[in-house]
Amino acid sequence: MKEVILELMDENRYKDIKEKISEMNIVDIAELLMELDKTKLLILFRILPKEMAADVFSYVSLELQQYIIESITDKEIGNIVNDLFLDDAVDFLEEMPSNVVKKVLRNADEETRKLINQFFKYPEYSAGSVMTIEFVDLKKQMTIKEALEHIRATGVDKETINTCYVTDSRRKLEGVISIRKIILADENAVVGDIMNEDVICAHTLDDQETVADLFKKYDLTVLPVVDNEHRLVGIVTIDDIVDIIEQENTEDLHKMAAMQPLEEEYLKTSPIVLAKHRIVWLLVLMISATFAGNIIKKYNELLQSVVVLTAFIPMIMDTGGNAGSQASTLIIRGMALGEIKTSDALKVFIKEIQVSLIAGFILALVNFARLVFLEHIDIMIAAMVCFSLLLTVIIAKMIGSTLPIAAKKMRLDPAIMAGPLITTIVDALALSIYFMIASKFLNI
Amino acid sequence: MKEVILELMDENRYKDIKEKISEMNIVDIAELLMELDKTKLLILFRILPKEMAADVFSYVSLELQQYIIESITDKEIGNIVNDLFLDDAVDFLEEMPSNVVKKVLRNADEETRKLINQFFKYPEYSAGSVMTIEFVDLKKQMTIKEALEHIRATGVDKETINTCYVTDSRRKLEGVISIRKIILADENAVVGDIMNEDVICAHTLDDQETVADLFKKYDLTVLPVVDNEHRLVGIVTIDDIVDIIEQENTEDLHKMAAMQPLEEEYLKTSPIVLAKHRIVWLLVLMISATFAGNIIKKYNELLQSVVVLTAFIPMIMDTGGNAGSQASTLIIRGMALGEIKTSDALKVFIKEIQVSLIAGFILALVNFARLVFLEHIDIMIAAMVCFSLLLTVIIAKMIGSTLPIAAKKMRLDPAIMAGPLITTIVDALALSIYFMIASKFLNI
Repeated sequence: MKEVILELMDENRYKDIKEKISEMNIVDIAELLMELDKTKLLILFRILPKEMAADVFSYVSLELQQYIIESITDKEIGNIVNDLFLDDAVDFLEEMPSNVVKKVLRNADEETRKLINQFFKYPEYSAGSVMTIEFVDLKKQMTIKEALEHIRATGVDKETINTCYVTDSRRKLEGVISIRKIILADENAVVGDIMNEDVICAHTLDDQETVADLFKKYDLTVLPVVDNEHRLVGIVTIDDIVDIIEQENTEDLHKMAAMQPLEEEYLKTSPIVLAKHRIVWLLVLMISATFAGNIIKKYNELLQSVVVLTAFIPMIMDTGGNAGSQASTLIIRGMALGEIKTSDALKVFIKEIQVSLIAGFILALVNFARLVFLEHIDIMIAAMVCFSLLLTVIIAKMIGSTLPIAAKKMRLDPAIMAGPLITTIVDALALSIYFMIASKFLNI
Repeated sequence: MKEVILELMDENRYKDIKEKISEMNIVDIAELLMELDKTKLLILFRILPKEMAADVFSYVSLELQQYIIESITDKEIGNIVNDLFLDDAVDFLEEMPSNVVKKVLRNADEETRKLINQFFKYPEYSAGSVMTIEFVDLKKQMTIKEALEHIRATGVDKETINTCYVTDSRRKLEGVISIRKIILADENAVVGDIMNEDVICAHTLDDQETVADLFKKYDLTVLPVVDNEHRLVGIVTIDDIVDIIEQENTEDLHKMAAMQPLEEEYLKTSPIVLAKHRIVWLLVLMISATFAGNIIKKYNELLQSVVVLTAFIPMIMDTGGNAGSQASTLIIRGMALGEIKTSDALKVFIKEIQVSLIAGFILALVNFARLVFLEHIDIMIAAMVCFSLLLTVIIAKMIGSTLPIAAKKMRLDPAIMAGPLITTIVDALALSIYFMIASKFLNI
């Protein structure tokens, strides 16, 4: 389809383009626009049927949105802004420089302008900031026939009509009714009788993660948002929730790799910002590694007399770090999904001790065989190394599973108790164990 | 609400319970059931209004599903299975022991049984295995009025009526039309004229991840699934996609912590299975750590003569591992979200070199100051350690950013190129650099 449009553009056959394009998916048109050069994309954007322009606009990149706004007439801007769903308009304006924001607001009609300004007041990442206000609201006393007429009259501008809300004269949320129920009901039935009064809803100030959890728990596709007086002020739809879920996952992952989460895509972030988000943790962990260094210093004499001991330091440290990271990752993810609660701490602890005994013994045995038969290391030293390894794995799993839960209990984000931090802690402990056992075993 | 029901149960007021419970949300009832003891939960389950029982059943845990099936009569089983949406029935049966599966299939009506058996043939994690067949299909030549009548007659058993599909006499998918378009259209309009022919669809054998990507790209809430002859065989709904997205995220995270992904929740997995999923990588990485050990062995003489060098091993290794993990995590996640492509390799490489220069210099400077002023280490040695640190950070970032992209190019899962593996590789390289520089600097 794209190739066809490009050919038609080269031949200036705009009427044919208009026809073809009106059959295309909005997202595909936006993709096509992003591939064109700046003159062509403006031509194509202006050919778009009026009812598609705002939709397509909401799917192109931020750079392109800015370019379009700076290139089209005030009247065209007005049309687009007034046609955008409010949540898309707010998302877009939040990312624009202030001259673009001013230009857009100047050309929006008064109601839109007022609404946008109101949205700007909700805290970032709150339900209020991700909701949209284009929902269908019905009244209790309406018959199904009246409700359908109301939907027909107002539905064209709504983000969804699949779920309708019932409010009283003061806009308080009273119930919810699906379009399916409306269509399947007798046309003389009354909305108040068949609506569902057990409405799951969010508050404007709820965190978006809380909102996403409600969607997951109740398999929702849309959720009403109410204010302090339980008045219905907006709805959140599932397409935004899917984005939020991925955002939260990315954030957790960045934290787990000892970074402050990025807000932009990687490729769009400058090296300086990237470095800024990484340096704090790198510094903290670098300085913490001094503990492990000091332990080595303390046992310098031992290392001097049994030189081969130094060569096992990487293996002990790495295996400890890996064993701890595995446990902490499982627990952090389990808590993020709500599968593990802080009250499960003891269960988790016992499980990890069992796992570490199994895994630790296998690792120690394999290592013992390798050291004695392949590397021809002294049996006494091999035994000592493998015993240290077993203890290291056990301690690593205990720490890896306990710290994330402890963090959660202290209302910290469990995601920081992941691989890097666990590794640093386990390193120091593992080396202490290793050297203590070595001095006992070897009588030094 | 839960407390009220529990009280009513103690007082055996079953009629009141029935009334209360019919107003509750399905998910909340399922939660309540899971909290009750086995006799009470059976009583409550049997009180459920017939039309709710199957829905509630699909939300309780697998253990409870099995217990319920083993405890109720054949006739009750039949009612539940026939009422379940097909995708829920298949999900549930896939996890049950064979005697339960047999019992359930024996009591299902013939059509349900045939359909379930057909679903069992789709590969795990394919679109076919997650779809459901309860969709509304219309014909091109229907008027809107006829379409609405058709929906009213059949809609009650469909998973969604919000999106309807248009098929020809041989069930080939011809178009899609939303309930919104149907409601807003004139009742004499013809479906074929207003339907959308540009239908985004998946194939039964497509991987569920591909399906999830389509949902994300096009902001879908439902997606049709077709077979080889482009016949419509089912639909996938967004609630299943949200679960799939979280599943895929969990899988990636487990791989990134050097584990084979778990299929069950952590708390429900036995220590032996947990150990099994972790041991392979632990063994591989433990043995790989020998490389770093061998490098230490090789420079034994150096370490003997300048004893303090050993104490910096943990800091160099840890900082290298952390710097590499940061880069690899960003790249792996960026690729999973489709933000970074293999063709961006050079861009990523250049960016990481820039970042590593900034971060590396800061780390080296801070460390230098600390070593010289706080620890009173010889300036020459401090300079040497910090220069090694800078080089280690640069190499770690280069490896951390390159290997995930290389893995993707070789059609491996980039997620394995995460922290643990990167750390092991960087360890060996970092130690080589450190000792080489030390021998040059110190002329040993």
